[in-house]
Amino acid sequence: MNIRPMQAGDFSAFWPVFQAIIQAQESYAYDPQLTEDQARALWCELPQETWLAEEDGVVLGSYFIKPNAAGPGAHVCNCGYMVAPAARGKGVASALCAHSQQRGRALGFLAMQFNAVVASNTVAVALWKKLGFAEVGRVPGAYRHRSLGLVDCLIMHKWLQAPEADKPLTASAPLIARKNIEAVVSRKRKKN
Amino acid sequence: MNIRPMQAGDFSAFWPVFQAIIQAQESYAYDPQLTEDQARALWCELPQETWLAEEDGVVLGSYFIKPNAAGPGAHVCNCGYMVAPAARGKGVASALCAHSQQRGRALGFLAMQFNAVVASNTVAVALWKKLGFAEVGRVPGAYRHRSLGLVDCLIMHKWLQAPEADKPLTASAPLIARKNIEAVVSRKRKKN
Repeated sequence: MNIRPMQAGDFSAFWPVFQAIIQAQESYAYDPQLTEDQARALWCELPQETWLAEEDGVVLGSYFIKPNAAGPGAHVCNCGYMVAPAARGKGVASALCAHSQQRGRALGFLAMQFNAVVASNTVAVALWKKLGFAEVGRVPGAYRHRSLGLVDCLIMHKWLQAPEADKPLTASAPLIARKNIEAVVSRKRKKN
Repeated sequence: MNIRPMQAGDFSAFWPVFQAIIQAQESYAYDPQLTEDQARALWCELPQETWLAEEDGVVLGSYFIKPNAAGPGAHVCNCGYMVAPAARGKGVASALCAHSQQRGRALGFLAMQFNAVVASNTVAVALWKKLGFAEVGRVPGAYRHRSLGLVDCLIMHKWLQAPEADKPLTASAPLIARKNIEAVVSRKRKKN
């Protein structure tokens, strides 16, 4: 398994995986009607970095990493992971998560936070716990599962560095958050 | 006190309040260096609705309401509230929050979630609890308070309707989330 930066041209090969996952409506709070262009923007342009796992030219999965919030919250990162249905049970999610924690440390983040792990996704919850994430919150009925109806979402958290290692942030983190705002400003100006 | 929709032209009168609050770095995870245009986009354009509280032409505070997530998470709304320093202790936050809960119900949301209530902001925490919000999570050290250093963030939640009242969403909620993605797509296309 090779994990490398995802390039814009890679997304088409990943799109069937992305689409199957959002249409299942079992794990991601993304609009199931997203187009490929919208999904590419969400997965590859909004985040700080996006990585792809592949083997023999076949896409196994992908993850993104970004600041979970701006300014005084920008020392915590957030990641999203997707694994191709055909590649499940082979340790891909585990490898992606380990890789993302290394990237998080390298980028200067102190901790990693997942905002909405669907509680009925027991395989994911068990994996994140095994990889050192703590359940720090549970929001009742926050996810409308396609077959189970309203299910809880978990907030999960892991320190990537001892909080004592706290140091000034790299310049890039707040800039990423600012980028999204500027996109909206620019869109609004074009409209007027 | 009059609470009315905030118009684009109202933001300049609110901007000093917004700027004082983000520069204090005690309650909001916004970049303290935001410009007025960026702040307007964040507060007035990204959300579904933005409301302004005023009295005798003086701005007392403001709040926004938006879906907390897209697709299967779009039945939960999220709000942000800001009260002018000079108007504190007069029940403005309480009035804004009551108003936002009415709007949330009217827009078809089932619940309201706050993702990052800074734990050291004890006045806010006590107020939300008094208004019926439950603490459903606590993320350690997720906020870099300007004078206290890393402090916890609370996740707070309130049902706006009995979950049994669950019904198909209004069309507007997922569209709002889609709007932000389209802004990025459009920006990206302009660049290429």
